[in-house]
Amino acid sequence: MIVVKAGGNGGLDIEAVCADIAELVQQGEQVILVHGGSHETNVISEKLGHPPRFVTSVSGHVSRYTDRETLEIFAMVTAGRINKLLVERLQQLGVNAVGLSGLDGRLLEGKRKSTLRIIEDGKQKVLRDDYSGRIEKVNTQLLHALLAAGYVPVIAPLAISEQGEALNVDGDRVAAAIGAALSAEVLIILSNVPGLLKDFRDEKTLIPLVGQGQIEEYLERYAQGRMKKKLLGTIEALKGGVRKAVIADGRVERPIYRALSGSGTVITQGGP
Amino acid sequence: MIVVKAGGNGGLDIEAVCADIAELVQQGEQVILVHGGSHETNVISEKLGHPPRFVTSVSGHVSRYTDRETLEIFAMVTAGRINKLLVERLQQLGVNAVGLSGLDGRLLEGKRKSTLRIIEDGKQKVLRDDYSGRIEKVNTQLLHALLAAGYVPVIAPLAISEQGEALNVDGDRVAAAIGAALSAEVLIILSNVPGLLKDFRDEKTLIPLVGQGQIEEYLERYAQGRMKKKLLGTIEALKGGVRKAVIADGRVERPIYRALSGSGTVITQGGP
Repeated sequence: MIVVKAGGNGGLDIEAVCADIAELVQQGEQVILVHGGSHETNVISEKLGHPPRFVTSVSGHVSRYTDRETLEIFAMVTAGRINKLLVERLQQLGVNAVGLSGLDGRLLEGKRKSTLRIIEDGKQKVLRDDYSGRIEKVNTQLLHALLAAGYVPVIAPLAISEQGEALNVDGDRVAAAIGAALSAEVLIILSNVPGLLKDFRDEKTLIPLVGQGQIEEYLERYAQGRMKKKLLGTIEALKGGVRKAVIADGRVERPIYRALSGSGTVITQGGP
Repeated sequence: MIVVKAGGNGGLDIEAVCADIAELVQQGEQVILVHGGSHETNVISEKLGHPPRFVTSVSGHVSRYTDRETLEIFAMVTAGRINKLLVERLQQLGVNAVGLSGLDGRLLEGKRKSTLRIIEDGKQKVLRDDYSGRIEKVNTQLLHALLAAGYVPVIAPLAISEQGEALNVDGDRVAAAIGAALSAEVLIILSNVPGLLKDFRDEKTLIPLVGQGQIEEYLERYAQGRMKKKLLGTIEALKGGVRKAVIADGRVERPIYRALSGSGTVITQGGP
């Protein structure tokens, strides 16, 4: 089983991703596609007169401030637009895709980060109406049922809290959590760079291989911005039982096949 | 099994609809909820700078002109916003809802009405880029699998064409097609009026009972605007094997229980 994270954040060749999935499915592989949606959510939020707001936590992480209105726009864009366009494209390629969000059948249960400690204008503030969260549980029964019946799940990055609230969750972490819960053979996180770079400004500084023991160190030394979440995702996935994770280029032709054959940054259990 | 059509077109007490579904599910009933989305699609289309356009066919029907951009907005609003908010609310009430559109798993296969003959400014015109359609097939296998596993399907009104194109379809007809395909006991179409009225301006003129043999006549004589589609839906549903269809008031408390106990316009197989 292969879990692929792609789409929703711009720059990727989604057409090539879908074509690869169609070929893999035809060869009998079980594939799950997880997507994001930050970029398109920003665009549509602007148009709807509720522009995105990003905040910096006291620990220095930048994240989307998800008030209820933002959450509803995020749900609309990710589960309604990105998800359904992916499902449509896959269906056109003969893949029997089924689009779900983490709300559906409580597919992804999460813990809401209800208080967000941020730094704004040099001062600490507490935001209490944020609807983002961390995934705590994957409903594998629903995924197994769909996979067994021949469907290809396409998952939008929403989770449901214990109280039944919809939550915005990170797509890379969704892919990692699903990969771990299903003990997938491979987790592929497609990016708009070739993988983890020693110098994020220079694509020629790709780090081809990372042993599980080195990830935390590499995370500290080399990962910037979104790459941090991708690496954190791979750490979670490997801890959860995924054998191999690849952070690979999603802008190229045959992006999934390339990642499977070792292009990108390969993170494996054990040493490098 | 009960198929309920509610939501997406304003005026209904969705809170009461969800509460009834929760109670029915707790009593062991199998329920499928189908929703619409015209009203909210109009609101969001306006905000996104692509206002809705309605056209009158040569036969006098008024319908939404669904170019590709409209279709994508319609998908986003119905499958992403309305569907996920319903799923969230049902989950909060303890119902394990799963939201799907007709694209997912080819749940609803439809025929695209690719040419639309319309009358505009007194002249006939042909529109060729419309993405709306008529349902031809329901993938009952996916619905049965979800129902058997204890999930409550919540369906957004999109279908998929033979060529794999997403199509805008009418929610009332979706509910009718699903009711027929599953031979549901009851189809309940909730409306913002008490049922079929002899005089659509006077809610006291409710027609309480219609025999299958009378529907076509009543359709001609009494049904205006959207009520026509609701009645056409019930005709299709009864022909397909649904035992009873009810067009009932969705603005009241306990709307589904009231409809089940005979409030509204009851349409049955055989005579009145």
